[in-house]
Amino acid sequence: MTTLVFGHKAPDTDSAGSALIWAWYLNDVKSTAAKAVLLGTPNTEAAFALQRWGFETPEIIADVADGAPVVIVDTNNPAELPANINNADIKAIIDHHKLVGGLETSGPISITIRPLACTATIMHNLMGDNAANMTAPIKGLVLSCILSDTLEFRSPTTTDQDRALAEKLAGELDLDIPTYAAEMFAAKSDISRFSDADLLRMDSKEFTVDNVKFRVSVLETTAPAIVLDRKASLLASCATVAAEDNVDHVLLFVVDILAEEATLLIQNDTVKAVAEKSFGVPVSGDSVVLPGIMSRKKQIIPNLKV
Amino acid sequence: MTTLVFGHKAPDTDSAGSALIWAWYLNDVKSTAAKAVLLGTPNTEAAFALQRWGFETPEIIADVADGAPVVIVDTNNPAELPANINNADIKAIIDHHKLVGGLETSGPISITIRPLACTATIMHNLMGDNAANMTAPIKGLVLSCILSDTLEFRSPTTTDQDRALAEKLAGELDLDIPTYAAEMFAAKSDISRFSDADLLRMDSKEFTVDNVKFRVSVLETTAPAIVLDRKASLLASCATVAAEDNVDHVLLFVVDILAEEATLLIQNDTVKAVAEKSFGVPVSGDSVVLPGIMSRKKQIIPNLKV
Repeated sequence: MTTLVFGHKAPDTDSAGSALIWAWYLNDVKSTAAKAVLLGTPNTEAAFALQRWGFETPEIIADVADGAPVVIVDTNNPAELPANINNADIKAIIDHHKLVGGLETSGPISITIRPLACTATIMHNLMGDNAANMTAPIKGLVLSCILSDTLEFRSPTTTDQDRALAEKLAGELDLDIPTYAAEMFAAKSDISRFSDADLLRMDSKEFTVDNVKFRVSVLETTAPAIVLDRKASLLASCATVAAEDNVDHVLLFVVDILAEEATLLIQNDTVKAVAEKSFGVPVSGDSVVLPGIMSRKKQIIPNLKV
Repeated sequence: MTTLVFGHKAPDTDSAGSALIWAWYLNDVKSTAAKAVLLGTPNTEAAFALQRWGFETPEIIADVADGAPVVIVDTNNPAELPANINNADIKAIIDHHKLVGGLETSGPISITIRPLACTATIMHNLMGDNAANMTAPIKGLVLSCILSDTLEFRSPTTTDQDRALAEKLAGELDLDIPTYAAEMFAAKSDISRFSDADLLRMDSKEFTVDNVKFRVSVLETTAPAIVLDRKASLLASCATVAAEDNVDHVLLFVVDILAEEATLLIQNDTVKAVAEKSFGVPVSGDSVVLPGIMSRKKQIIPNLKV
């Protein structure tokens, strides 16, 4: 039976790319029939990167069958996975997020979680000597995943390993990192086709702090003005999305990749208080700029206070 | 702050030994201050192996402090760990059991779970080239962990990796595996000092099947007659232990390492029915022999039916 390889429900470059990378490894190196699939529409950057390296967009699946062999990449959170995931035959998990709890397996399996910036870097390490067999398109995907998750090495999640691997691969591919990263970020910044609700849900994770449920959404862009021009309707949409998604508040952080800062939208007094307590800044008006804030994982979630 | 390295609450050879192995690795190879500790009294085999290779019995701790740096080995089950574990600073998890769920970390950490027989084998792989620096006592511990968890390669959990590593280390240590394994199993079989309740809890894990809670206990021995001579009082103790530990039934499997079979005690009609349904054998009387059954992980838990 073909093993399905997939990441989380909101496929970004690392999530979609690393599914394709590991499916290649299983098929071509381990001689195990495998197929990358997606649990949602890839974001514009992921779509760009897949096309750039010659990959078709993988099939989008709604759920997994009982007993289906699967490999989970770039998440260990059941809320970000198919409803039936705990009845699938989970063969392996490769991830770089905090352990959330909730996934269960019927027997011992292979789980590799590392505090690196990017799932693809972990995969490269797992491949060992076989990494030398990576094709140019697979190398291009690994590089894309690293540049995406590190925001071209600007994010504090970046490790020496991620950076060294990206630079090695760029050399082998004869690719200029700043030029290619700018193309990726331009693709990510092209949000014209998305509704406000789409933008609030595009790169979003739920977190609960002291029994208050937040949808913590991040939009990484090299053109923040395009997002902030829509501030009024985005603010209005926060309450609707919160109600529809059964959370208390939506926190939208518009991350300016080049200026290395985030703008948080302030749609009500609770979010104002959260912003002041969590980031130690005074807030007046309907948004606040947070200098240096780029990473949900390292800078936003660990500081969130209500 | 010194990192505490520990396994589960009922320290067997792999659990106690791998804590010492990883503490050595952190201290001597990674220059990270670390100390192996235990969460309970080691069993007689573990005590023998530690003494044989010149290790003091590590300190037994009752709980961990908020924010204490810890490495968890040979389990990922919060029920087998200190009550305060989710408030500790979990640095890493190295294990070979199924993912249970329930452990949470505040940020991404290093987690390595592999379907190998023994935690020490996974550690050896993680060490990479540094494994060549293992001292003779550390090699002896790794070998002891493998022989213990594989029952000298008899258990169906044994993989080629476990076996090859044990044989390599025995060669380097100039040790005869059958002789040394016999010494270890004799130590494990020396149960004279333990009460019936001790024996029922010594190597025991809780599992729930269709809302029925079992304490699934295993006694691996090369001298099953010593245990079975105490059958009447062990049978009587099952109900007491079940009541005290808030489970519905205790299942005690006396594993005869040399005959490669298990004897399950039958203290009531529910356990009789469970034995018949789970292992497809007719049961009459107060015990039943299960040919070939040696592994709780591979043969008992996956088959348990009520």
